[in-house]
Amino acid sequence: MNPPEIVESLSYIFLPPSYQHCYNKIMEPNNPLYPFFYPQGIVVIGVSRDPTKLGYGLARNLIMSGYPGAVHFVNPRGGTLFDHPIYPDISQIPDPVDLALVFAPPPAVPDTLDACGKRGIKAAVILTGGFRETGSDGAALEEHCLEIARKYSIRLIGPNCVGLVHAHLPADTTFLQPPPPPSGDIAFISHSGAIIAAIVDWMRGQGMGVSHLLSLGNQTDVTETDTLLPVAEDNKTKVITLYLESNRDGLRFIEVAKKASRQKPIIALKVGRFESGRRAAASHTGAMAGSEQALQAAFRRAGVIRAETTVEMFQWARTLAWSPALPGKRIAVLTNAGGPGVTASDALEGNGLQLAILENRTIDELKTFLPLAGSFINPVDMLASATPEQYARSLQILLSDPGVDGVMVITPPPPMHSTGQVAKAIIPVIQTYQKPVIVVLMGDTLIQEAVQHLRAAHIPEFRFPEEAASAFCALNQRRKILDEINLPFLSEPGHDAIKARSILSSSFPGMFLPVDQAVDLANCYGIPTASAKMAKSSDQAVDIAIHCGFPIALKILSPDIPHKSDVGGVILDIQDTYQVKEAYQRIIENVSTKIPTANIEGVQIQKMIPPGQDVIVGVIRDPQFGPLVMFGSGGIEVEGLKDVAFSLAPLTQADLDRLLQSTWAGKKLSGFRNIPAADQEAVRSILIRLGDLATNHPEINEFEINPLRVLTPGSGAVGLDIRVKLVDKPQKEERV
Amino acid sequence: MNPPEIVESLSYIFLPPSYQHCYNKIMEPNNPLYPFFYPQGIVVIGVSRDPTKLGYGLARNLIMSGYPGAVHFVNPRGGTLFDHPIYPDISQIPDPVDLALVFAPPPAVPDTLDACGKRGIKAAVILTGGFRETGSDGAALEEHCLEIARKYSIRLIGPNCVGLVHAHLPADTTFLQPPPPPSGDIAFISHSGAIIAAIVDWMRGQGMGVSHLLSLGNQTDVTETDTLLPVAEDNKTKVITLYLESNRDGLRFIEVAKKASRQKPIIALKVGRFESGRRAAASHTGAMAGSEQALQAAFRRAGVIRAETTVEMFQWARTLAWSPALPGKRIAVLTNAGGPGVTASDALEGNGLQLAILENRTIDELKTFLPLAGSFINPVDMLASATPEQYARSLQILLSDPGVDGVMVITPPPPMHSTGQVAKAIIPVIQTYQKPVIVVLMGDTLIQEAVQHLRAAHIPEFRFPEEAASAFCALNQRRKILDEINLPFLSEPGHDAIKARSILSSSFPGMFLPVDQAVDLANCYGIPTASAKMAKSSDQAVDIAIHCGFPIALKILSPDIPHKSDVGGVILDIQDTYQVKEAYQRIIENVSTKIPTANIEGVQIQKMIPPGQDVIVGVIRDPQFGPLVMFGSGGIEVEGLKDVAFSLAPLTQADLDRLLQSTWAGKKLSGFRNIPAADQEAVRSILIRLGDLATNHPEINEFEINPLRVLTPGSGAVGLDIRVKLVDKPQKEERV
Repeated sequence: MNPPEIVESLSYIFLPPSYQHCYNKIMEPNNPLYPFFYPQGIVVIGVSRDPTKLGYGLARNLIMSGYPGAVHFVNPRGGTLFDHPIYPDISQIPDPVDLALVFAPPPAVPDTLDACGKRGIKAAVILTGGFRETGSDGAALEEHCLEIARKYSIRLIGPNCVGLVHAHLPADTTFLQPPPPPSGDIAFISHSGAIIAAIVDWMRGQGMGVSHLLSLGNQTDVTETDTLLPVAEDNKTKVITLYLESNRDGLRFIEVAKKASRQKPIIALKVGRFESGRRAAASHTGAMAGSEQALQAAFRRAGVIRAETTVEMFQWARTLAWSPALPGKRIAVLTNAGGPGVTASDALEGNGLQLAILENRTIDELKTFLPLAGSFINPVDMLASATPEQYARSLQILLSDPGVDGVMVITPPPPMHSTGQVAKAIIPVIQTYQKPVIVVLMGDTLIQEAVQHLRAAHIPEFRFPEEAASAFCALNQRRKILDEINLPFLSEPGHDAIKARSILSSSFPGMFLPVDQAVDLANCYGIPTASAKMAKSSDQAVDIAIHCGFPIALKILSPDIPHKSDVGGVILDIQDTYQVKEAYQRIIENVSTKIPTANIEGVQIQKMIPPGQDVIVGVIRDPQFGPLVMFGSGGIEVEGLKDVAFSLAPLTQADLDRLLQSTWAGKKLSGFRNIPAADQEAVRSILIRLGDLATNHPEINEFEINPLRVLTPGSGAVGLDIRVKLVDKPQKEERV
Repeated sequence: MNPPEIVESLSYIFLPPSYQHCYNKIMEPNNPLYPFFYPQGIVVIGVSRDPTKLGYGLARNLIMSGYPGAVHFVNPRGGTLFDHPIYPDISQIPDPVDLALVFAPPPAVPDTLDACGKRGIKAAVILTGGFRETGSDGAALEEHCLEIARKYSIRLIGPNCVGLVHAHLPADTTFLQPPPPPSGDIAFISHSGAIIAAIVDWMRGQGMGVSHLLSLGNQTDVTETDTLLPVAEDNKTKVITLYLESNRDGLRFIEVAKKASRQKPIIALKVGRFESGRRAAASHTGAMAGSEQALQAAFRRAGVIRAETTVEMFQWARTLAWSPALPGKRIAVLTNAGGPGVTASDALEGNGLQLAILENRTIDELKTFLPLAGSFINPVDMLASATPEQYARSLQILLSDPGVDGVMVITPPPPMHSTGQVAKAIIPVIQTYQKPVIVVLMGDTLIQEAVQHLRAAHIPEFRFPEEAASAFCALNQRRKILDEINLPFLSEPGHDAIKARSILSSSFPGMFLPVDQAVDLANCYGIPTASAKMAKSSDQAVDIAIHCGFPIALKILSPDIPHKSDVGGVILDIQDTYQVKEAYQRIIENVSTKIPTANIEGVQIQKMIPPGQDVIVGVIRDPQFGPLVMFGSGGIEVEGLKDVAFSLAPLTQADLDRLLQSTWAGKKLSGFRNIPAADQEAVRSILIRLGDLATNHPEINEFEINPLRVLTPGSGAVGLDIRVKLVDKPQKEERV
């Protein structure tokens, strides 16, 4: 991409000339992971001369891949294989050798690693299974391997994996069945080896190819986080795909993935139950935030696109690898039949895209050569008689329309022309414009020629409009990621973090803060709350009322009276000290008359809060990905209604917009029918402050204001109830 | 399926022996659609001898299909084609001829139909385009064709279609490109011809085949509703698929599809914007019920499974065609690798299935021959070394477990054994059990042999676990349909329909009922309401209060006072006439003091309704599919929260359960955290009554109670606000 810089880097680090084609920003040879990506010499430990054994497959794939470095084989029995000597002992291997492929029986792996360490090898892939995945004995063995590796500063990939492929080096260190993986521009990093075996074979049939395959197995040492940047910096890689069964790097994953996704699109498929999401929760905020929400927020922060299915991940990957960036979400559809056009329109809208509104000029131009019985409102239907030339010319006109960001071209098997001819006609047009074009070749036998043409030209093609619409969705997600990934974090000035820290340090880990301290903590961050205080006499009520400021409300406080107003236990809108005294007496009288048996604790005095919209705001700390800010519809039904959204703290402008726009509670703040608008700006400010609070104070586990009463625009918002829970103990890494 | 009955039917209706293999319950020859399905002789009008013309393709396909009846060609130029004479004139065609394929230019079609009518032909397929789809002139021409057809009692399919295929007759009356559609067991009825062309080609690559293809084009006469039963009764058809762009038969579609789906699974893909759903709505119920909801409810009532994408529809169709019925939703997963097993578990749960809990016996048996390092908790992971024999034996053990309703078998490309061998080993096991087994063959090149074996054995196979889970979802939907399709409609006795009719007939179409009449109407159906009455003096307030019964509430009624309680305008829980007088005075005084300028209309008197859960219930009449009953979270935020569900009236037990279980409002009735339970039975009874009301009174367009206050269990529910709107005018058919 930037040749002078590469040359300079190369001269600096003395890379073998055969590797020069692989780099963008170069990986430094003193990076401990360097030998996994650019090995100078590879030893295969545990080769076999029996073609039915995996130890044979490993040797075969390495030789067949055309790996340009040194190849060494080890097996105690000795002999030769593929014209290479088999050394009986690791110590005897000549230079160069910097990567070991370990295919020894599990109990022999620790000694093998020890021998590697003594030979000076600093990187090993353990392909053998039989470790942590089999139970506690296996886990202990794996831990032992890790100890030995650490002793010699060996980095480990695996155990229980199928190996690595660097298609453009080339090097294939897997024991996968031939034929070898097709080479291409998609990197695939996977926790599951079986998925790699399947995907490699499946991609071949789809005309896709890989740049890197990284099978990480049990990830006892190297995780997906470690491998993201080297892969992102490889200039043969256009897109990175991830198959994740777990993620234990948490914040480091977010940080690294964010760097990587600035360079290359990352798509991830995350599978597996989220047991940790079922942990006991102390608040609504806690109950609503499973790890699923945290993961979603983490992927969003990191700029990782999340796929729902394996096929979707790779169809998206191809599209992102082969298409120019989508400048906006207005898509034109070009078809020769009405039905698929309708399907396309539905699917585009369902995938968050818009049907482009064509300029009059565009429509007029199309009308000069298309049959007038066709349709010129997007989707443009050229009718069944459309020729390859009409396809090409119409596509050119649509791509020239400034209101069109991308085009879906649809060709059912036409009764007259071959789709191959259509493909040949449109390819040069597609290559002229910097806008994505996705082609739908409907059918199978009759469209094979067109498929081949388009794949050769690296233009994404699908069988049905729904798949093409989903691919546009991926392009649109990538667009939004690039729009948002460099946004600064928002912060509101004026908080008193020192006082907040002293409040928090005065309480015990794992406990709730007393309510007055919770209120003080909120005040430190400029979050207004209206707390109630209790009076046990009318004089005390007067004192508290004067302190609060009028008007105030009085409410009976008794565990035996669930519906206070039904028994005359609530008096609102009290304006002066005289009324306070009178109201206090009246409430006590009312209640004593109606429920003589009620145990009265006292009378609650609260400043009158004007009516407004009640919402919930909060913070919950995910053990994996850190603090999340929550916003949504509050009240006691918050868990049932599920009208809540989460973002990682601190917030960006995009996060803030999403919290408000993706919830009914947020939309309603602008007013709806006869619900008057409320002070949205106050809510935004409080959410930013909550982000500050969560970021500054890792002692806070959960912080919840429910409800937050949002007053009329300009009048602010007031927390009516608040609860704060501290973390149990210092956070440590755990597996999700 | 039932040979003696078939023979009897055949002898009765004198069908040609060559057709005897096609029937289940026989189609009667006097059915006007009979010639479309079992033509005795076909005339192709507008044949061409030029192989580049569609008129040639039409003749070619008919001849090549091996159609056993008489074939006739017509073209004014005469000559011969495929050894058949070309008649210049329709009148000259010899017997037998009962179906015309019309491929004349649009302006010539009316005369052609006239000639067909004179020749005694009673069925015609108009393949030509250029009618309604091109605008008003085309629509007029189409209307003219229909008039001529009606004059001669000719039934029409089309215009603007690609024709019909009856693969097992055989007969191909399309002009689709060769090769001809693969024959099989899936019927496809489509509004779009282009989709048919594409699907036919695509199915070939998927190993699927068709029994019937019906391209209905503009459906000027014959619609999908007309064709459903003949297709369902054809014993070569196992599943019916529908591609719908519109539906204009409404209630008849529901009735017919319900009959058809009792015999065969029906899967539909409905595309297109729902403009009619955007009609102005007078109530929340109206605003919430788009045609989308009505369509969903109609499909549910008819037992039609709705697919989201084209691929999904046909993948589901193959699964339903080839699998035994799924007895329950507990699925076992059998795999040789962990990763795909995790993916499968996630996908099954996401598709509404459950992971089966294996019996101890099953686990013990598996342990006798599988490696102990594998996993014996479902998913069963046999590890990568699994042999074909282990696959077969494990599958057999899983299928024998009474807690397993179906099995997903997963084979990534194994490093040692071929998937072909695995397929061969498991096929006999699968064929032994009456439980569905879906096989996931991960990969492409390496699994082709297995694909061929499984397709030949009619066992559904997919490339990825997510697709197999989706297929199980289709089987599960079919199970639920068969469970529900014969449920009786619920009705509550004791309503006074005669009085209700007289109330309704006293009002004008399109108007709201006055509130007292709305209350009376609700009373006719035993739906309790608490309406407020207005007093303009304290004496009048006393009279009304006595009529209501104590306790009552008084509220100020003034357009200038939005928040009544803030100004002392509400007094609750009034127990006797003395308190009424006092409260009336106090309210007037309070308000006059605080807002002297307020225009006071009077004071509202309402019986005190105890606290409870507020919900919305209602009825909305869809112009297409009739009345829908609605239930959900009410209040003024009902449109924003969207926590509502709809069912067609009258309701079945399953509808009632779904209304309550699919909404938060419904779940909450059983109590949640500190929200006490409410009278769910009262809500059920009211919903059934609303179904009765909606069914009995087509004059009602919208009927809404919001809120319905649901009291503690056993105490019933009371409507606090009610509005009823009458239909504008008698319903007529319209296109959705």
